[in-house]
Amino acid sequence: MIVVMKKGADEAQIQAISERAAGWGLKAHVSAGAEVTVIGLIGEEAAAQGPALEMMPGVEKVMPVMKPYKRASTEFHPEKTVIKIPPARHGDRGLNIGGPGVVVMAGPCSVENRDMILSLGAFLKGTGAHMLRGGAFKPRTSPYAFQGLGVEGLRYLAEERSVVGLPVVTEVMDTRDVEMVSEFADVIQVGARNMQNFNLLKVLGRCRKPVMLKRGLASTLEELLMSAEYVMSEGNTEVILCERGIRTFEKFTRNTLDLSAVPVLKRESHLPVVVDPSHGVGHWDLVAPMAKAAVAAGADGLLLEVHPDPAKAVSDGPQSLTPKRFKELMGELELVARAVGRNLH
Amino acid sequence: MIVVMKKGADEAQIQAISERAAGWGLKAHVSAGAEVTVIGLIGEEAAAQGPALEMMPGVEKVMPVMKPYKRASTEFHPEKTVIKIPPARHGDRGLNIGGPGVVVMAGPCSVENRDMILSLGAFLKGTGAHMLRGGAFKPRTSPYAFQGLGVEGLRYLAEERSVVGLPVVTEVMDTRDVEMVSEFADVIQVGARNMQNFNLLKVLGRCRKPVMLKRGLASTLEELLMSAEYVMSEGNTEVILCERGIRTFEKFTRNTLDLSAVPVLKRESHLPVVVDPSHGVGHWDLVAPMAKAAVAAGADGLLLEVHPDPAKAVSDGPQSLTPKRFKELMGELELVARAVGRNLH
Amino acid sequence: MIVVMKKGADEAQIQAISERAAGWGLKAHVSAGAEVTVIGLIGEEAAAQGPALEMMPGVEKVMPVMKPYKRASTEFHPEKTVIKIPPARHGDRGLNIGGPGVVVMAGPCSVENRDMILSLGAFLKGTGAHMLRGGAFKPRTSPYAFQGLGVEGLRYLAEERSVVGLPVVTEVMDTRDVEMVSEFADVIQVGARNMQNFNLLKVLGRCRKPVMLKRGLASTLEELLMSAEYVMSEGNTEVILCERGIRTFEKFTRNTLDLSAVPVLKRESHLPVVVDPSHGVGHWDLVAPMAKAAVAAGADGLLLEVHPDPAKAVSDGPQSLTPKRFKELMGELELVARAVGRNLH
Amino acid sequence: MIVVMKKGADEAQIQAISERAAGWGLKAHVSAGAEVTVIGLIGEEAAAQGPALEMMPGVEKVMPVMKPYKRASTEFHPEKTVIKIPPARHGDRGLNIGGPGVVVMAGPCSVENRDMILSLGAFLKGTGAHMLRGGAFKPRTSPYAFQGLGVEGLRYLAEERSVVGLPVVTEVMDTRDVEMVSEFADVIQVGARNMQNFNLLKVLGRCRKPVMLKRGLASTLEELLMSAEYVMSEGNTEVILCERGIRTFEKFTRNTLDLSAVPVLKRESHLPVVVDPSHGVGHWDLVAPMAKAAVAAGADGLLLEVHPDPAKAVSDGPQSLTPKRFKELMGELELVARAVGRNLH
Repeated sequence: MIVVMKKGADEAQIQAISERAAGWGLKAHVSAGAEVTVIGLIGEEAAAQGPALEMMPGVEKVMPVMKPYKRASTEFHPEKTVIKIPPARHGDRGLNIGGPGVVVMAGPCSVENRDMILSLGAFLKGTGAHMLRGGAFKPRTSPYAFQGLGVEGLRYLAEERSVVGLPVVTEVMDTRDVEMVSEFADVIQVGARNMQNFNLLKVLGRCRKPVMLKRGLASTLEELLMSAEYVMSEGNTEVILCERGIRTFEKFTRNTLDLSAVPVLKRESHLPVVVDPSHGVGHWDLVAPMAKAAVAAGADGLLLEVHPDPAKAVSDGPQSLTPKRFKELMGELELVARAVGRNLH
Repeated sequence: MIVVMKKGADEAQIQAISERAAGWGLKAHVSAGAEVTVIGLIGEEAAAQGPALEMMPGVEKVMPVMKPYKRASTEFHPEKTVIKIPPARHGDRGLNIGGPGVVVMAGPCSVENRDMILSLGAFLKGTGAHMLRGGAFKPRTSPYAFQGLGVEGLRYLAEERSVVGLPVVTEVMDTRDVEMVSEFADVIQVGARNMQNFNLLKVLGRCRKPVMLKRGLASTLEELLMSAEYVMSEGNTEVILCERGIRTFEKFTRNTLDLSAVPVLKRESHLPVVVDPSHGVGHWDLVAPMAKAAVAAGADGLLLEVHPDPAKAVSDGPQSLTPKRFKELMGELELVARAVGRNLH
Repeated sequence: MIVVMKKGADEAQIQAISERAAGWGLKAHVSAGAEVTVIGLIGEEAAAQGPALEMMPGVEKVMPVMKPYKRASTEFHPEKTVIKIPPARHGDRGLNIGGPGVVVMAGPCSVENRDMILSLGAFLKGTGAHMLRGGAFKPRTSPYAFQGLGVEGLRYLAEERSVVGLPVVTEVMDTRDVEMVSEFADVIQVGARNMQNFNLLKVLGRCRKPVMLKRGLASTLEELLMSAEYVMSEGNTEVILCERGIRTFEKFTRNTLDLSAVPVLKRESHLPVVVDPSHGVGHWDLVAPMAKAAVAAGADGLLLEVHPDPAKAVSDGPQSLTPKRFKELMGELELVARAVGRNLH
Repeated sequence: MIVVMKKGADEAQIQAISERAAGWGLKAHVSAGAEVTVIGLIGEEAAAQGPALEMMPGVEKVMPVMKPYKRASTEFHPEKTVIKIPPARHGDRGLNIGGPGVVVMAGPCSVENRDMILSLGAFLKGTGAHMLRGGAFKPRTSPYAFQGLGVEGLRYLAEERSVVGLPVVTEVMDTRDVEMVSEFADVIQVGARNMQNFNLLKVLGRCRKPVMLKRGLASTLEELLMSAEYVMSEGNTEVILCERGIRTFEKFTRNTLDLSAVPVLKRESHLPVVVDPSHGVGHWDLVAPMAKAAVAAGADGLLLEVHPDPAKAVSDGPQSLTPKRFKELMGELELVARAVGRNLH
């Protein structure tokens, strides 16, 4: 950590910083320049003390040097994490997230009924999709909007897995539901609005299922990595990072899909990175180009909304692909994946 | 709701919208212009159908006409809501939030220990502050940072209330803790990161304590009102709205305190509006001017961080006022409050 | 245009809107709903009157129905615009921007000296790049930073064109320089900071060279199209739109490259769309993945910073590719272009 | 400037930094920590070299220590700048901007005709306003919108000054117009969209009139100060800084008025700070609370749009105050100004 003193800070103020640092077991290196004095503090615990130092007399600013994330970082763990999803049915093959294959997770925004899940699941499996996504618990801006089928929805997903064979990714919103959802899901999703629901992250850190963490609408990538750190610090190291768009001033799109998140996260972290273009753009006609772009940028997977009849969807219809368009897209994605040295399995 | 058809949309497409609308019990008024046709849909449930219509062939866009919030809105409830906080001790006077007086809630970011809470509480009461704020459960970006004293912290707050007499506002982060926190708190705070933790909002909607809802870092004011609607739709109508800064590109301040939220929320809603300049700016030297500005803009209250020794605070030291500076500020605030026809009680 | 009246607006207020509209030659269609009345105004000039109507008694809000851009829009001009750049030297082939080929414009941020431009130009031509980019006039945040070589720089670019044969794209910042720059440049660039320098746009609208318009840091795509409209409304229809990143809260990247701009602009407009990943991300190691993503998203061209020795660049070194890395990237881009049915010529 | 080396950077890489720095006349202080090595570079020109160093092998990041603005900074020039506007007519008193009085600049968005300017000017003078604002050259998003009266508008403003006696603030948009506008204006305004039109700033730096610089929609306060630095570095030290709202995701307001800009700019700089709540919020009913808040926050002046009949304004009607409302507001502002130890003269 670097402490920059104010122009005109005096000797006593500089000394006070050094003494305070010594009290925390840190060594202080003072560099007195012509205009300002700069103090480097060295030692493990330095970062956490930044705010306290910022308050001390004569201090202009405090600049952290070390990255705040450890378990999630490439520095701490240079090998890429590959998350293995076990086969949904006896005799099926398992799935790797974070390996050379690009994983496609597709399905409706909300689980609406049993038939939809079973028939759409079968269709998706036929197109080569790898996982079924579908929400049983739905975070909705309005209390008057459909809130999801709850446990009933989870049961339909479980039935799809055992009958059709696509492993399942579904969201959890409440610490009280983690245990139940973890019985039904292959990957547990944390939605953008809960990315900094730290209690939820801690409970997920103690469960045995991979967690897919969606970036918050106004969260920096550093904060996304810190939320992964919450899960990992409790013992669960299987975390998938998901870019799904951030909130900006642009109005043509629902959010601004920040695809540069992909190369940044893959440089900073060993965790797999997935992109959700459906939420990122919010209009089905923009989903295909952005899905292809995500794969070209190096994403390890895609989360795509598909609905048998988008105009009748109870939620997120405008951003859902029809089955027909989705099938075409799978072919297009395979070409792009190969162009960057990967494949769709 | 207004449906704007694409240039060149045909009769059948227009007819399909009208029929679909009729199926929902809505009446459709078609206005065929020289360039585009516009369809007005009339009826109670219109708004929820917007996304489905957006998917129909020939539709360019769908524009909602009605406001999505009801219980929180001025239209639905024109009289201002005044929330009564009962006296902390026998013989004390109670407190009104949302009346002519401007309410000051002050205290440390985190409850650090018993002595601090009791002595700071006594000091604050002496300066004319109305409530004690302090976090027992702390949402922290890093899992390695201080997470709060938990129940122990709540007990110190309760002791302060019975001994010193300042009612208490404190945060809840988890649905599992709502019952417990509601026993200790006079006002339960929902932090910015949990503004759209809808399950938490629903549980709070069924408890008997006023809820102070902080605006999320990337939440629109409409979304803040919709989150209030969540609490109110479950039966708890005592909601306080709190502006605490939004995330922008500016770097001198921790967040961008959006004071225009005050007149907007007071126009759109009958609920009291409080401002937290400490989190809004993040640096103690900017807190006083922004606190005065908030009162001048019409805020019903302020949330201010005060710490006996900010340089030693376990959290948010840089934005905390010293007791001395806080006392001066109380005098300055009284002058501004009077200039806009109010007072600090 | 739709005028939504306030709940409780009276007959006289509604009548006043209709009369005012009639005064502008517009027809008014009144739809009285159970809760609110909505008035549709029909006629060519409706949009410009929105703000005036918003001020009239009883009006809640005014919602435009028509798109504000005409000449730049797909509705007005459905065929894609292809801009032809004439051959730089006798015997060379010309270049199409907006056709099936993806055009690569590469070069240093600033023109630094003659040797650099001639030798780098020759290298780039050898790799298959199509145009040379380089700034002679440089917009710099600090008045103390290098401001560009000016006319001298333009002369080096012209020499490169006649000797090496790559056509040239370079920036103009001042109405007074347009005539001069248009003599030297094949494409004249308007930088992000000047996207709404309307006088500059008007002057460019009267010159005979294609204009490449970079999106402003906080400009919506609608505003970008309106700026194109400025140029086009003066007669110059050869406009290239360029996404180069918008300003958000994210700190790992210099800007947030909004690749969804590509499919949005290609849907809304017939003009070619180019992406500048170098400015978009600001770090050379992120440029290649984002360049590939841009091509996968459907971009008609790329603007890439290349410098013979980035560590010695007078500006934008950190985001510049080395010649070696650029050459590799050209090969990678060809593969992605083919995967989406295009090529690099 | 601080150079943070990557974990594992070797001796040769560290040595290379020191040598490079020595070549620029800088001294390097190397602090080798347990995990990372940090190099402090000392000397006048250090800041400009940051990007070049960032490219060198082994470098993780470069952190500037010194502020990039000099002439605009409090450090360089601790006494507050007070700008004197000479009396408009013989016998009138002059005006100070940046002194104890809060200066009110009021008037229409656009100069629409001669009568309006003369009669509104007279009214405003009667209410105690200090300057007349009005645009003769108008930056408009659409080329089809009213572009201003140009020189004719300037003449009406000049007539108002000599007849009524209010000094005039008006905008310049083009380097070619600076000389002409400076003959008519008492303060020359640079609009938000031109804040980084660096050529315009340089020309204004060589003229003899005070310049009011409006913050760009996506400009940081540091960039605003750097734009002031452009003007000042050419010799014109009379710069007024103006906060007028930044672009965010919020939709109730046209922009987000960042009032914390006031205390930040007054701490960082000696230049006067003015606030424009009309553009900041975009709706007349929000202007008064925000104007009062701006004064409470410490603003040296206000820029307010007033129109004799806002519903008929050719531009910005929705955010304009009626003369009646403006007059009331002047009384309210006087009370707030006094509450913070100032006055409206």
